[in-house]
Amino acid sequence: MACNMKREIRPTTAVVPCPVVLLSVAGPERPNIITLSWVANVCSDPATIVVGVRPQRHSYQLMKDTRDFVLNVPTTELLEATEFSGTKSGRDFDKFAECGLKQVPATKVKSPMIKECPINIECKIVKVDSLGVHDLFTAEVVAVHIDESVLNENGRLDASKTNLFTYLPLTGEYWSLGEQIG
Amino acid sequence: MACNMKREIRPTTAVVPCPVVLLSVAGPERPNIITLSWVANVCSDPATIVVGVRPQRHSYQLMKDTRDFVLNVPTTELLEATEFSGTKSGRDFDKFAECGLKQVPATKVKSPMIKECPINIECKIVKVDSLGVHDLFTAEVVAVHIDESVLNENGRLDASKTNLFTYLPLTGEYWSLGEQIG
Repeated sequence: MACNMKREIRPTTAVVPCPVVLLSVAGPERPNIITLSWVANVCSDPATIVVGVRPQRHSYQLMKDTRDFVLNVPTTELLEATEFSGTKSGRDFDKFAECGLKQVPATKVKSPMIKECPINIECKIVKVDSLGVHDLFTAEVVAVHIDESVLNENGRLDASKTNLFTYLPLTGEYWSLGEQIG
Repeated sequence: MACNMKREIRPTTAVVPCPVVLLSVAGPERPNIITLSWVANVCSDPATIVVGVRPQRHSYQLMKDTRDFVLNVPTTELLEATEFSGTKSGRDFDKFAECGLKQVPATKVKSPMIKECPINIECKIVKVDSLGVHDLFTAEVVAVHIDESVLNENGRLDASKTNLFTYLPLTGEYWSLGEQIG
């Protein structure tokens, strides 16, 4: 595909494609949801993830106060809720209500899970580090829930039974997954 | 898609889908390539990425010694090289030679870029933190190169001109991208 001529552009966050998660977090008035792409699995034992969040975001203080959150993996059916939760503030909107999403109590953390997402990852915050305009939350995974409808007979995820999607920060686009290639 | 019945599984790194990058790093004998999925954009200014690497991996010490690396984004044409570089050790193989990949000098770091990858992200390591079985490398992006063949008329990535793919750690599968949905 490459024509072997490259253009150097300004230094930017160019890793593609990226995950998309709906992070749900408890709050004093109501829980909130924030769409994030700056998230990764980073350590298998203890199972650890990181997320990058701007301190100005409404969820930032909720996360610092609650000390936990849930990463909910959306499907293409939830694209509208994903875009809404990534662009509107929880200061102005009850995102669960606006998006028609249902809260389900988590088993290990105070923050609620989103029922409509087939994968829910309960996380307890270990530390928060400033990187610049974003802070990095390091969190330990304490429980994972997967919808029975997307499991195979061995109790593992069957990705063909759901419609995962991905985000390209270089273009601001969401893309569906195609097919298994390896 | 969800049938509203969830199964709780053991705590694990369940974020899906994930990026796949070929990390190239300089070395005293030869440069090495390691395939990583535990990688994320985490801060926009300064542009910062993180990667999780086990200390036992050959590239780990090269990264610590060199203090920089390049994240090369592969396409589906490089799936074989991706799998090879993720499962074989640079102690035993010259991965550039084995995979038929060409080194290109980077502009800001000592580590080489992989010519065949349409996106190359030069990174300087800021710090290394132990998380458990993996260490977390925090690195600043110092240059980005994109192949002219995958740019649109405005000089931005046109993802339809290349074949990006993604990794699902819950299943160990690689999936192609489908189509733009948002």
